[in-house]
Amino acid sequence: MIEEISVRYLESFQEKPVEPVLIEGLPGIGQVGKLVAEYMIHILGAEKIGEIHSIYLPPQVILDETGLVRLARNELWLSRCAGKEIVFLVGDHQSTSNEGHYILADHYCELAGEMRVKRIYTLGGFGVGHLVNEPRVLGAINREELRAEIEAAGVIITRDEPGGGIVGAAGLMLGLSAPRGIDAVCLMGETSGYIVDPMAAASVLSVLSKLTGIPVDATRLNDRAAEMEKVIESMVEDGKGKDEELNYIG
Amino acid sequence: MIEEISVRYLESFQEKPVEPVLIEGLPGIGQVGKLVAEYMIHILGAEKIGEIHSIYLPPQVILDETGLVRLARNELWLSRCAGKEIVFLVGDHQSTSNEGHYILADHYCELAGEMRVKRIYTLGGFGVGHLVNEPRVLGAINREELRAEIEAAGVIITRDEPGGGIVGAAGLMLGLSAPRGIDAVCLMGETSGYIVDPMAAASVLSVLSKLTGIPVDATRLNDRAAEMEKVIESMVEDGKGKDEELNYIG
Amino acid sequence: MIEEISVRYLESFQEKPVEPVLIEGLPGIGQVGKLVAEYMIHILGAEKIGEIHSIYLPPQVILDETGLVRLARNELWLSRCAGKEIVFLVGDHQSTSNEGHYILADHYCELAGEMRVKRIYTLGGFGVGHLVNEPRVLGAINREELRAEIEAAGVIITRDEPGGGIVGAAGLMLGLSAPRGIDAVCLMGETSGYIVDPMAAASVLSVLSKLTGIPVDATRLNDRAAEMEKVIESMVEDGKGKDEELNYIG
Amino acid sequence: MIEEISVRYLESFQEKPVEPVLIEGLPGIGQVGKLVAEYMIHILGAEKIGEIHSIYLPPQVILDETGLVRLARNELWLSRCAGKEIVFLVGDHQSTSNEGHYILADHYCELAGEMRVKRIYTLGGFGVGHLVNEPRVLGAINREELRAEIEAAGVIITRDEPGGGIVGAAGLMLGLSAPRGIDAVCLMGETSGYIVDPMAAASVLSVLSKLTGIPVDATRLNDRAAEMEKVIESMVEDGKGKDEELNYIG
Repeated sequence: MIEEISVRYLESFQEKPVEPVLIEGLPGIGQVGKLVAEYMIHILGAEKIGEIHSIYLPPQVILDETGLVRLARNELWLSRCAGKEIVFLVGDHQSTSNEGHYILADHYCELAGEMRVKRIYTLGGFGVGHLVNEPRVLGAINREELRAEIEAAGVIITRDEPGGGIVGAAGLMLGLSAPRGIDAVCLMGETSGYIVDPMAAASVLSVLSKLTGIPVDATRLNDRAAEMEKVIESMVEDGKGKDEELNYIG
Repeated sequence: MIEEISVRYLESFQEKPVEPVLIEGLPGIGQVGKLVAEYMIHILGAEKIGEIHSIYLPPQVILDETGLVRLARNELWLSRCAGKEIVFLVGDHQSTSNEGHYILADHYCELAGEMRVKRIYTLGGFGVGHLVNEPRVLGAINREELRAEIEAAGVIITRDEPGGGIVGAAGLMLGLSAPRGIDAVCLMGETSGYIVDPMAAASVLSVLSKLTGIPVDATRLNDRAAEMEKVIESMVEDGKGKDEELNYIG
Repeated sequence: MIEEISVRYLESFQEKPVEPVLIEGLPGIGQVGKLVAEYMIHILGAEKIGEIHSIYLPPQVILDETGLVRLARNELWLSRCAGKEIVFLVGDHQSTSNEGHYILADHYCELAGEMRVKRIYTLGGFGVGHLVNEPRVLGAINREELRAEIEAAGVIITRDEPGGGIVGAAGLMLGLSAPRGIDAVCLMGETSGYIVDPMAAASVLSVLSKLTGIPVDATRLNDRAAEMEKVIESMVEDGKGKDEELNYIG
Repeated sequence: MIEEISVRYLESFQEKPVEPVLIEGLPGIGQVGKLVAEYMIHILGAEKIGEIHSIYLPPQVILDETGLVRLARNELWLSRCAGKEIVFLVGDHQSTSNEGHYILADHYCELAGEMRVKRIYTLGGFGVGHLVNEPRVLGAINREELRAEIEAAGVIITRDEPGGGIVGAAGLMLGLSAPRGIDAVCLMGETSGYIVDPMAAASVLSVLSKLTGIPVDATRLNDRAAEMEKVIESMVEDGKGKDEELNYIG
């Protein structure tokens, strides 16, 4: 019988990280978390250390760059940079079922515990339903003592946003890491929610860079944000917003 | 692997109640049960004694007053008042799946059995689809011998209302407590079903106060009901009913 | 933990039936099977012998005649009549999930095996999407040797009807009883599918009476069918068909 | 308790195949895979060797040619032809749930491993949303070394098609056979996605015949494709396309 979740570490992954930070950037609103985490993986030259498969992910395979097929999956990447170790959790999809969300997020926290992660950052978008010029970064914490540090980095922590709670891995990992004694912070870039949003991602990246003390050259993400801004401006002018489809600009 | 349901009692909860009454006021139609139970918790100065988490609750976290995050959950509160002990079951959500409804409601009854609960009151709204001026309180019982007492308190017990049965915890807890030898009564305040309804809640509270013999100062709930009534009257006059959204007035 | 399915036999049920026939009449298209089975239970004076609860039934309670609450359930009834024993399987609902349909239907067949049932009749409606004046009875069998007998009773067995297969307990019980060596026949009364249909039920009852050799006075069911026919005729004349709702005429 | 999946081999199946090829042709887009696999079974005179039942298939029975009922199922057929052995996996349905897709596809690969299958071909349609005159065959592979051979047979392997991944058994079997060391290739006939498409099936059959080295007389499938082409042409001319329903022309 197939396992509900299977985690496979690559053979190349030998030296365990010491009290790393874990950054979760799975798909979600505006793909904000995914953009940030995958951009950091690229810029920091992180290496893939593991793959996670689960029957709670959509029942499909993905074609890679060469047309080779692989199961929909989540991945763990490790960056060792400036004396700091960061584990990234990224992937194709989140769970397709409610129970699966809990089971997967709990497993991610279990993995974090095994790796002795000292802090988790979960990344996401905060959909406001309209275009945002200067996206704020909203935050949530799983321990009161984290507040001062997070707010000092320019993050807004308030009950009212997001009023409806935080759904999926970005939220559940905060709740499920707390009883394990792992600090966790959710950073949400304000976004319309309608498009893949590199502007929101750039805001989140800037905050995350401050919080982790890891300098990340944001040039290319900012370029992409600038491009996107032009596209949107022209769309707004042309009134074509509804007919065009904006895709993930990789 | 994460547990399907986990119950954690607070350390401050040492002295077990003796044959308490259990009042369930989880979210539901018109938030009637939730309004009544949370109001009683507030007025009676009940203390929280436990938290219930489950993979059958929505996969999300809630931000508390300070922006601190916690998993969606149900809670147990205890009031010791006038020589009477009442356990309250309240919370953010009910189950998101049909099977989860059964599994959670059965677990609540299991907890009731462990606490030697002698009677369960489940609270809810009875949606009639139109505004109600003087909301009746409809009832259902899980043992014939309860009828006289419940009807004497002004509750209407009839097969025809609600004709479609009672869905969710408010109903299932009656069915699942019966084989455990626990008496259970469902009290439903008549409500439009469209808005959070403190008027229906006030009616239920009045009946519940009689039945439990616990005097509850209903002033603030009545005030809220009066406010709501004004809002609705002005909406009806303005014909704005469909465009305005009435939210939970906490 | 609550059981997926629980079966409770009444204490009054002491004398096991010997090679009885099992008639399934759970809710379905046009409530045809339910009408027939409940009518037979009434006319033959069957006694209730058991109750079946399951987390795959809808999560709700039903109010009985007196306002007393009980969990949604299925029931077993037993008729001893003219030297013949018939077990009836009736109830409030079928499963709410696909997997639950299999699990429940398999359990029903398991119970049939334990009671040494020699033949199962599952009853249902065959929805044709338009009013039917003289409803045929369509059939399906789980063993070729049954064909002659069933067709001789006026039942039409053909691949083309129902072309899409038979969904739910009425179908699954045929498939799941075959490997247990239990003969099973599905009888479907032709019906519009839009209304509770005593006319289709009367057709099925007539066939079932022949097949089981049990005379059932169909007067009251025919009366109800005649009433329904008048109602429909007047609706067709008035062209009110779409605005009126026809409910279960108990 | 009913098993999640049950596999039953027929008694007539005694001589195990030696390193056979497995061809999966379960229902899917345009019924392309089903058409090809069932056509090959017919033309090659394959014999049925097994049946697969599962609670993840739709909860229904199917009427066979004679009106006899059987559970919805998948089937295994074996062809011994020209010194080559091919096992076919065909059936009425795929899973109705996401988790069921994984559980079933993993079981199919488990069976393939037990039969020492050396290569799996999964067949499907690639829906493009418009009529296709000369359907291409798109492909996906689960090991880089397969590329040259597959492309040499005229199959187009590219990341961009299908961009959204391959859903269901045709995709999952590639992903789940890889860790078992079984080569697997998915062949998808370009199709509108609106109709059962023998033209796409003929394209896939032609490629598959080359790849397996098994000559299959495609006359009857081509005839059916020609008929279908005429039907579509006349529909396009008459502009009746939207009102007519094209069914599986068996």
